[in-house]
Amino acid sequence: MAKNSVKVGDLVEIKTKNDVLKGILMPRPELFDKNFLILKLNSGYNVGIKKEDIKRIRRIQSLSAKTIQLPPLKRDPKKPTISILHTGGTVASKVDYRTGAVVSRFSPEELVEMFPEIKDIANIKSQLIFQMFSEDIEPEHWSILAKKIEKEIKEKVDGIIITHGTDTLGYTAAALSFMVHDPPIPIILVGAQRSSDRGSSDAAINIIAAANFITKTDFAGVAVCMHASSEDKSCFIHEATKVKKMHTSRRDTFRSINVLPWAKVSYDGKIEFLRSNYPKKENKKVKINTKFEKKIAIVKIRPGFSHKELEFYEKNKYKGLILEGTGLGHAPTNVLDNYTKQHENILKTLQRMSKKMVIVMASQCPYGRINMNVYSSGRDLQVAGIIPAEDMLSETAYVKLGWLLGNNKKIEEVKKQMLTNITGEINKRTVDKAFLY
Amino acid sequence: MAKNSVKVGDLVEIKTKNDVLKGILMPRPELFDKNFLILKLNSGYNVGIKKEDIKRIRRIQSLSAKTIQLPPLKRDPKKPTISILHTGGTVASKVDYRTGAVVSRFSPEELVEMFPEIKDIANIKSQLIFQMFSEDIEPEHWSILAKKIEKEIKEKVDGIIITHGTDTLGYTAAALSFMVHDPPIPIILVGAQRSSDRGSSDAAINIIAAANFITKTDFAGVAVCMHASSEDKSCFIHEATKVKKMHTSRRDTFRSINVLPWAKVSYDGKIEFLRSNYPKKENKKVKINTKFEKKIAIVKIRPGFSHKELEFYEKNKYKGLILEGTGLGHAPTNVLDNYTKQHENILKTLQRMSKKMVIVMASQCPYGRINMNVYSSGRDLQVAGIIPAEDMLSETAYVKLGWLLGNNKKIEEVKKQMLTNITGEINKRTVDKAFLY
Repeated sequence: MAKNSVKVGDLVEIKTKNDVLKGILMPRPELFDKNFLILKLNSGYNVGIKKEDIKRIRRIQSLSAKTIQLPPLKRDPKKPTISILHTGGTVASKVDYRTGAVVSRFSPEELVEMFPEIKDIANIKSQLIFQMFSEDIEPEHWSILAKKIEKEIKEKVDGIIITHGTDTLGYTAAALSFMVHDPPIPIILVGAQRSSDRGSSDAAINIIAAANFITKTDFAGVAVCMHASSEDKSCFIHEATKVKKMHTSRRDTFRSINVLPWAKVSYDGKIEFLRSNYPKKENKKVKINTKFEKKIAIVKIRPGFSHKELEFYEKNKYKGLILEGTGLGHAPTNVLDNYTKQHENILKTLQRMSKKMVIVMASQCPYGRINMNVYSSGRDLQVAGIIPAEDMLSETAYVKLGWLLGNNKKIEEVKKQMLTNITGEINKRTVDKAFLY
Repeated sequence: MAKNSVKVGDLVEIKTKNDVLKGILMPRPELFDKNFLILKLNSGYNVGIKKEDIKRIRRIQSLSAKTIQLPPLKRDPKKPTISILHTGGTVASKVDYRTGAVVSRFSPEELVEMFPEIKDIANIKSQLIFQMFSEDIEPEHWSILAKKIEKEIKEKVDGIIITHGTDTLGYTAAALSFMVHDPPIPIILVGAQRSSDRGSSDAAINIIAAANFITKTDFAGVAVCMHASSEDKSCFIHEATKVKKMHTSRRDTFRSINVLPWAKVSYDGKIEFLRSNYPKKENKKVKINTKFEKKIAIVKIRPGFSHKELEFYEKNKYKGLILEGTGLGHAPTNVLDNYTKQHENILKTLQRMSKKMVIVMASQCPYGRINMNVYSSGRDLQVAGIIPAEDMLSETAYVKLGWLLGNNKKIEEVKKQMLTNITGEINKRTVDKAFLY
């Protein structure tokens, strides 16, 4: 960075082979690749730029001199303590356009300045774990996060808020449910669909709602807190294994699938539980298990699907597959006419493969339950060794499968566990009211 | 079938290597593979059984003697004529348990006996095109169906109802929208989630609603008619390129995505249009174009995704790919930390592949619009040659891509057409109210 002597906090223009980007140079978090610069764009989003891709870097204005030094917060021993773990996304990042000051906004002081209501609710600890777009998050990151959570639990915090990009927030929430089993405290993932720099940002309301939920209830478990509707009135607390991003851009994009949300938290802090059987603070002994088998995949079935697509996973020695079948859990298995002869190959391929790996049938319908007993296609698939994902989201089934395979070497044991509820991911009954709720 | 001398209409028990099945031997439709028997199970569902898989076949009871001969229907010249094309599924199949009679229920007389209200609405023509589970339907079947529709249009029917299994009904509806462009009559796909043998069957209400909609409105185009709610009160008429099966088992499983349904049809025949800009009967000249390129696929992005999964499609010379990205249309493209080094490979692989095939970004969020301009990940993907699916469902984008590639050899022309609305699949504005409607 000596080149051009630009400094953190400077407004710079960076030319790469593909792009000319203008923004403020940000401090790099601990776990960040040292070969990258982080730039906060005018849109409020941070991007990582590989140093070797940079063709030119030019300082437009030096803003760093104006950096505000915030006075340290006083700890209130009467209040509970919440630990905030940041992974990136738009929740807790902001440029103060008013003063031109650059604050990385991850110290407790900065967070409180950003979301002032939070200091009336709890004492705040804060840590920047990653600074990532959530689409770049990998199973390895889930494991690191689970270990950080374990550390915070040992340090006796009263609850944890994890800020996370929304793209893969559902996957991470499910993964933490399996990796951090029976936590004695609430662990709430919070995202935002609008940058904190914007008037329409949902960041503050989501974080404050999560803090209220943590401090005012006896809930203990992993959950997701996001806008309940497009208005700034309330948030839902979603079950971590049952939540899906349903809309590309709406602030109320996350919906509970096949169950009602645990609770609704109003903007004024009022909490209404929608289900009474939520996991509670009891004498729980948390079990942390962060292993994950990455040689698994999700494959979507469709008209025109070829058995050769399956064979790729066989040849490359994958350990497990989630099929996103049609309807109740179907795949083309019959040669019922003279036009296509390949369907039988799909069944034969699955039959052969399921002896070597665990193949699970989920549905491309987001809602509902797999039932492979109704039609002959489903029965054939079961005979071929395919097991149903029950009422699990395909994303949750994927995360569960990788976690089980990371911890079990025996295919039969993993199959048995896939059909057994571990942390709320399988429910015997589907709640009718939950459809499009 | 000489063996054991079982006859169509007999109640038989068939032993295969995997199963013992009991049911009534059904007549085989014209296009059905001659190596198969069709058995109607007690559940009311039909299954195809490969003759060579049959170990034993035994007659339990001969029911065929009781077959009812229905009197021929009189054509009412004052009423419009609806042509019903059957493709299979549970809509129009039934065993009359009261009399023990077997009727294939595909002649106009049998249909009217099954859904008596229909004869007050229209004269009925009826044809059995396929007898298939819809998960077995392939693009080739879409083309056959489109040609049958062309024939019916030439014969001047006033409307067409297509009965279809629900699993891939959305794919077929989208395909027919492209293959049968600007039809001068309504073409309504109807499915059922419960067999016609059951009290809870939705078949009658869906068919009657479709018939009412055809005869009482000036709508002309391809659409889907299914239950609007779990009650037997009304059906929605969904836009064919905008409809998705959202629940594995509910009768109101089909929902319009990003748009409101065209209309709501009450059980008593009352019709309410929810959008006024529907395609109308005007001097339309239908264009039938049934070509389809099958070397395309849908690939779902996820944490843990490997560029090698993409390379399979490159090595096998696929012509197009729909990526189901995260959120606004993202894929892991940055190496932002020290744990994973593969993300850059995903971007490089996509960049190389998009020179040889058309790669389109859709979202794994069912609702919303792709926007690859907000984040650097999206911008990188666009520079790599990936084009956005706009507000199209990934399933519709898939069907459109195959249809375009079947008719155009030039990648650049197909890319341009993918971004252009052809038959309602792309809307400039997303309707807020449509979310979870």
